[in-house]
Amino acid sequence: MLMILQALRIGLLATAAALAGPALAALESAPDFSAANFLLDNGMEVVVIPDHRAPIVTHMVWYKIGSADEPPGKSGIAHFFEHLMFKATANHAAGEFDRAVSEIGGSNNAFTSYDYTAFHETVPPSALEQMMGFEADRMRNLILTDDVIKTERDVILEERRSRIDSNPQAVLDEEVDATLWQNQPYRIPVIGWIQEMEQLNRTDAEAFYDSYYRPNNAVLVVAGDVDPDAVKAMAERTYGKVARGPDLRPRIRPVEPQQNTKRTVTLTDARVSVPSFSTQWVVPSYHTAKPGEAEALDLLAEILGGGNRSRLYQQLVVKQGIASEASAFFQSTMLDATNFTVYGSPRGDAKLADVEAAVDAEIGRIVKDGVTENELERAKTRYVRSMIFLRDKQDDMASMYGSTLATGGNVKDIEERPDRIRKVTAEEVKAAAARYLALDRSTTGYLLPQQQVEQ
Amino acid sequence: MLMILQALRIGLLATAAALAGPALAALESAPDFSAANFLLDNGMEVVVIPDHRAPIVTHMVWYKIGSADEPPGKSGIAHFFEHLMFKATANHAAGEFDRAVSEIGGSNNAFTSYDYTAFHETVPPSALEQMMGFEADRMRNLILTDDVIKTERDVILEERRSRIDSNPQAVLDEEVDATLWQNQPYRIPVIGWIQEMEQLNRTDAEAFYDSYYRPNNAVLVVAGDVDPDAVKAMAERTYGKVARGPDLRPRIRPVEPQQNTKRTVTLTDARVSVPSFSTQWVVPSYHTAKPGEAEALDLLAEILGGGNRSRLYQQLVVKQGIASEASAFFQSTMLDATNFTVYGSPRGDAKLADVEAAVDAEIGRIVKDGVTENELERAKTRYVRSMIFLRDKQDDMASMYGSTLATGGNVKDIEERPDRIRKVTAEEVKAAAARYLALDRSTTGYLLPQQQVEQ
Repeated sequence: MLMILQALRIGLLATAAALAGPALAALESAPDFSAANFLLDNGMEVVVIPDHRAPIVTHMVWYKIGSADEPPGKSGIAHFFEHLMFKATANHAAGEFDRAVSEIGGSNNAFTSYDYTAFHETVPPSALEQMMGFEADRMRNLILTDDVIKTERDVILEERRSRIDSNPQAVLDEEVDATLWQNQPYRIPVIGWIQEMEQLNRTDAEAFYDSYYRPNNAVLVVAGDVDPDAVKAMAERTYGKVARGPDLRPRIRPVEPQQNTKRTVTLTDARVSVPSFSTQWVVPSYHTAKPGEAEALDLLAEILGGGNRSRLYQQLVVKQGIASEASAFFQSTMLDATNFTVYGSPRGDAKLADVEAAVDAEIGRIVKDGVTENELERAKTRYVRSMIFLRDKQDDMASMYGSTLATGGNVKDIEERPDRIRKVTAEEVKAAAARYLALDRSTTGYLLPQQQVEQ
Repeated sequence: MLMILQALRIGLLATAAALAGPALAALESAPDFSAANFLLDNGMEVVVIPDHRAPIVTHMVWYKIGSADEPPGKSGIAHFFEHLMFKATANHAAGEFDRAVSEIGGSNNAFTSYDYTAFHETVPPSALEQMMGFEADRMRNLILTDDVIKTERDVILEERRSRIDSNPQAVLDEEVDATLWQNQPYRIPVIGWIQEMEQLNRTDAEAFYDSYYRPNNAVLVVAGDVDPDAVKAMAERTYGKVARGPDLRPRIRPVEPQQNTKRTVTLTDARVSVPSFSTQWVVPSYHTAKPGEAEALDLLAEILGGGNRSRLYQQLVVKQGIASEASAFFQSTMLDATNFTVYGSPRGDAKLADVEAAVDAEIGRIVKDGVTENELERAKTRYVRSMIFLRDKQDDMASMYGSTLATGGNVKDIEERPDRIRKVTAEEVKAAAARYLALDRSTTGYLLPQQQVEQ
């Protein structure tokens, strides 16, 4: 089981699961992936994206439950439950599902984020209904014993130790997140605070399962060499048999108050060799933004720091030669307000402060002078092309639908995105930068090598 | 109604309510204030502290409900409810209670903090039973209409605007608190985040009232010219008639993870003329500390920065002359882990950075070399004497009992405090400083005058 903490641009999750199918050639123009979208009688939403380029199918179930939905003091339970979903059910022993996937040469995995928990398999189309059967089974038939709870709790605690506590960057990121977010639950780490993970128990797990693992809280995404009508019939035969659960409360979470301060978080650690910084701001997500504003932020991230053509890269890495990396990132696909990040690291004898000042100067330049029509056009082209490239990997494409639908969006949002990106004006990009990227209302994390401590 | 956000040393609340009785002379030795302590049948705890120096009595009801107990997204409701308690009940019109107090020359007030909400009156002893009648009545008989809710919500919103949003120090303090506390609910302002205060409604208020305003969640403190048996009889005739409510869940709140970083929060504002800083650490409170540790922190605060005899004052204000103030403070009486604070402000041409460096140096000196026996003895004497002085103001004395009992302590804790303070060793003070006051794991707030902004 894999826990993904950081989503990539436009909401895609970097899964470690390798596709089992053949490598697919990149496409320079978008093929027609018209998605079918319907509800089962029990409230489960289904999206089918036919993709006949290869005889494989990606099957994903997205539950609209993530770490930001956890009860106070129960941090980590969403991710813990992702682990528990791989245990025995009333109908299948633990490991049986995994073995069935490997035996047919497929791959499978799962991940938990702030807004959702997802399970996926990539298999030959002939195995799709079998996968649906396994997934539908574990949606309601898990056997949660105290032994299972204890064993798997030890696993997540070890996962925390190895992935977070032994990694200075991860330790810093947790405290930066909790400094950026002072009220909204994105401040809580997906994996959980250790003192709360240690206390998670069977009662918590059962309550969580009964509340959230229900067809009316799930989105099924099937992408691949399949026919929507056939998928619908299979879904009805499998998931359709799972009873609808009680209605869930709307996902209304505490929101962030206005930030009035400049905040910093500094971790100094002997294991760090090269210093780095990242500065973040709270900005609207596609789900919370006014029309056009998230699109403007997406293009702002692209122009400012989206790869080698961006201003930050050209200025700091290429021209001044002071940075080994300098980039910007907009975490766009979230249920609630989200973050816009810039980061950089010095090269050679350059100082971290110089890199930060140069990044700040580039931000100041966009705030003051805006962007040119030419670079905006090029950014739009790169952005739209990246949406096409993204369809090239079937599980990335499926994830784009799943993450959007699990964060309050719909299929139309995805289909209309390229047109809405093309409509963004240079003035809108400048306005987004001016409104959100204020240096005196920001949160900066510094990762520093150990120095002579004065104290 | 008064909301008190900052408690003074040893947990006393600085109430603005002036005592109506005659001024009392300071005592150099402790008179015997043996407190009677018992439960009513409905679970209400009672403390009576006879104090016959003047013909007045202080009557307080402490509810074990504060802002840190609020449901997620409902910040401010504890303080809002403090306001609502002054509205009409089934038996008394709004304002009737207040008028009854003024007519007999008494005073009354209320306050809300993280761990409790308290209501108090100071009156002649003959009016005590009348006060009890009013308090017992509003414990259960409030009439909460939509009109009442709307009107009073406007009042708390205006209170927030005038006390917090128009005050740069208060705005900074809120964000420093939310940066210091990343999980524990002390990160949430007592008055509430404005976007949540705006949404508080009658349903929220009724649920809150029914859960927490119950005799079995309240502590009655009566200090003054009264006899414990007579107070007991009166309490039974008034509060005793209020039915016990459902058992409350233990007050187990999310706790703070280990801090691994140095954090800063900076507010720059044109209304600031003199810069200042404060650095905080998470430390145990009397309720969470191992035996002797909170006492050592109390003495550390006294030696480091408790008034004009302290190291910070002597070094920065008197000797170096660089600071207009330099102090230390331990917020000791809290249900959960609490904060230890140092702060300072420059004088004349001195720079804030110099003041901060000098404060840090004094901390470093205690961490490295500890404290002398002589200054420890003097600090103990000052501390114990301050506990005696504190009994001089009847409402401060009553508050000491109320705040201790509302944060998990008991009468014995208060009575034994002087002895436990006297037992602290110099080694324990040094160890507390070394364990908790690490500069690379601290949270510092900076309040700065407006400067030339580079951006």
